[in-house]
Amino acid sequence: MGINLTNFLSSKSKNTKMIDFQDLDHIDGLAISVVSANLYNDVRDDLTMFYFREGANYASVYTQSKIISENIKWNLKQRPKKIYSLIVNTRNANAFTGRLGYESLKKLADLTAKQLNKKQKEDEEKPKIISPKNIIFGCTGTIGELFPYEKISNNIPNLINKIRYTQNKFIWMKVALAIMTTDTKPKLAMEECQIGNEKIKIYGIAKGSGMIYPNMATTLAYIFTDATLSNEILGKLLKKNIACTFNAISCDGDTSTNDMATIFATNEVKNSQVKSINENKIKNFDKALNNVLLNLAKRVVSDGEGSSKFIIINVSKCKNEIDAKKIAFSVANSPLVKTAIAGEDPNWGRVIMAIGKAGPRINLNKLTIKFGNIIIVDEGKLSQSYDEKIIANYMKGENIEISIETFTGKKNFTAYTMDLTKKYVEINADYRS
Amino acid sequence: MGINLTNFLSSKSKNTKMIDFQDLDHIDGLAISVVSANLYNDVRDDLTMFYFREGANYASVYTQSKIISENIKWNLKQRPKKIYSLIVNTRNANAFTGRLGYESLKKLADLTAKQLNKKQKEDEEKPKIISPKNIIFGCTGTIGELFPYEKISNNIPNLINKIRYTQNKFIWMKVALAIMTTDTKPKLAMEECQIGNEKIKIYGIAKGSGMIYPNMATTLAYIFTDATLSNEILGKLLKKNIACTFNAISCDGDTSTNDMATIFATNEVKNSQVKSINENKIKNFDKALNNVLLNLAKRVVSDGEGSSKFIIINVSKCKNEIDAKKIAFSVANSPLVKTAIAGEDPNWGRVIMAIGKAGPRINLNKLTIKFGNIIIVDEGKLSQSYDEKIIANYMKGENIEISIETFTGKKNFTAYTMDLTKKYVEINADYRS
Repeated sequence: MGINLTNFLSSKSKNTKMIDFQDLDHIDGLAISVVSANLYNDVRDDLTMFYFREGANYASVYTQSKIISENIKWNLKQRPKKIYSLIVNTRNANAFTGRLGYESLKKLADLTAKQLNKKQKEDEEKPKIISPKNIIFGCTGTIGELFPYEKISNNIPNLINKIRYTQNKFIWMKVALAIMTTDTKPKLAMEECQIGNEKIKIYGIAKGSGMIYPNMATTLAYIFTDATLSNEILGKLLKKNIACTFNAISCDGDTSTNDMATIFATNEVKNSQVKSINENKIKNFDKALNNVLLNLAKRVVSDGEGSSKFIIINVSKCKNEIDAKKIAFSVANSPLVKTAIAGEDPNWGRVIMAIGKAGPRINLNKLTIKFGNIIIVDEGKLSQSYDEKIIANYMKGENIEISIETFTGKKNFTAYTMDLTKKYVEINADYRS
Repeated sequence: MGINLTNFLSSKSKNTKMIDFQDLDHIDGLAISVVSANLYNDVRDDLTMFYFREGANYASVYTQSKIISENIKWNLKQRPKKIYSLIVNTRNANAFTGRLGYESLKKLADLTAKQLNKKQKEDEEKPKIISPKNIIFGCTGTIGELFPYEKISNNIPNLINKIRYTQNKFIWMKVALAIMTTDTKPKLAMEECQIGNEKIKIYGIAKGSGMIYPNMATTLAYIFTDATLSNEILGKLLKKNIACTFNAISCDGDTSTNDMATIFATNEVKNSQVKSINENKIKNFDKALNNVLLNLAKRVVSDGEGSSKFIIINVSKCKNEIDAKKIAFSVANSPLVKTAIAGEDPNWGRVIMAIGKAGPRINLNKLTIKFGNIIIVDEGKLSQSYDEKIIANYMKGENIEISIETFTGKKNFTAYTMDLTKKYVEINADYRS
């Protein structure tokens, strides 16, 4: 699905470089290793280790589903001050795998900690002591299948053996590919910013293509920075910026058991201490983090299963953000809106339907609806300038932006989604994901 | 689209005759007229008048959408004691048509009342005086297009001219076809019951194929009975029985601006007065009404756009009915569950996902999931008897029943839906509905 990212990336994140793939480079304090554990019964990379030799500060947000995967349970239970390794596998979600799935992770953490301690003694002047609780996991793939413990544990020595302490654009591409499932494109994003006078890097990768309607979290998104920031500050920045990025996207309204977004700070750049996210010196970082997350979130949507159009739903002049979000997602998740857009049909009546069914009150005498810059509904009535030919032409584009003003207040929310195509059904009816 | 109705109708409504189309016959006090007003620019019937020469008691439930069609506004504003006519047009929803759409209905009601008064004087010994407020409207079709007032008003004399005071199975089939839009099959249902010693008929027709997730109402469903029942009793019976019938179905999670279910009682059978819906003598009628509504609701789902499978989601042992309904609809509306079923893939992991994202707490240590009679999850774990081949075989059937026990209480809810196929996308991407 060849949605061109250039246009839509430009609309919201002006700092983002306008190229399809940004070149990520080295982050001090991070090491990466990628192997194939044969989880797909072929040679593709499927097992990734992120290793922080000095330990990393971190913060995570997780799926709000009432049924969560075993790795999320593990991650929630460990509350170490620092993370030394994140291990990500694809093909198997380790969800609904019960005690066996959880015990597998415990054994993997034991094994990994033991081998990393050995490596610490070999490589470091002052070796750290790594405990199993310093290891967290990301899992993605089929729910309910036996977790492939043997294949993964057999490859831990291999993973550790292949650890490289420096990164370049090729290793980032390799790792972004290794965490993919039904994704057709790797997702990478980067920003450079400052905290005080210090130059800071923020790099991110993500995966996700279906079952995407994150709720306070995401599919898988991992952000790395060389800044020095406490777990508390990272947590506040992540939560704040997830709300309008990963929590603003939906492919199909389905929320995964495995959603996970984590930010790691290696503390290699010795910026001055940040005690509050309201401090002036963190504003530049805050904005850059938002850009990276939004950039990744948009890439996830634009690679949504079977998508042929990228859709932005802006809801503004709303009573509160909750209402704006309800309306935005009611439109974004409506199969009838999404199929109309797939068919390039300017069927704005279905947008009306989706606004109406959302729940929140709207001021029907003032309601406006625009497709792109074309006014369709004005003061609650079909615009006098309405010309179906012009809108039909607009619908042919790859990027569709629908803007709704409800005139009940001053708040707004923007949701991102894609169209619903036959290809979506084909992928999900024919493929066990 | 050839879902066989026999099996699924048998499961819940034992009184229903197991035939594809029931033969509806005459209802005393009702007259019907059907014409083509050329709304589709062809000869198909598209305009229907139901006429009650003596007036009918009645009760309605309407869409809960915040944007409602002009005919629903009209119907809500009129609060007459009796209805003399219901006029139903297809092709145009008269939604988001503003003052012009509403004024058109007012003029149609004026015109119809005038001509019906003339007819009363010709036909009746004691002519009634019919006011515009005694006329209500059902509209279905495209939202936001100019209401075809001229075409309809020009056909009012024609409609009145063709009024016939007796019905047979052919006229019922004709009228059930005339109210269809993208439906592929007419929907009719009937029951006979008793109030005291009096034999009572309950006949119903419905339309609906897409934009189906009724909320306290339905697409269009019209029920006719010859019983003598007050507006208050009809209202209570309708509200009670809609909850577990039309409000338990979803094709695509989209709610229309025009949903409407109305029951009319012609009072021709002089049964003894019913003062409360808890009286013993109304129980048989209550059950029969439920059967008619459930039968129609199931027919709407089984004709859901592009459907190849009829799906029943039973959620039981739940804390309360609201939670059971949330979980049932989370599964019923999940695109990933619906595409898996279309693909005959026993992907129960997606059912787990949909249960998890629904919101309500579940008892994960006891959770059971069955496909048909096949136990998949037992005590929160994959059943030891799980055999994918057996379930894969079950998925080949046309009727898929998924039963979920959450073990948080004693309440239950059953939702009805259909699968999500490429055909659904084709219909809705290519057709302006």
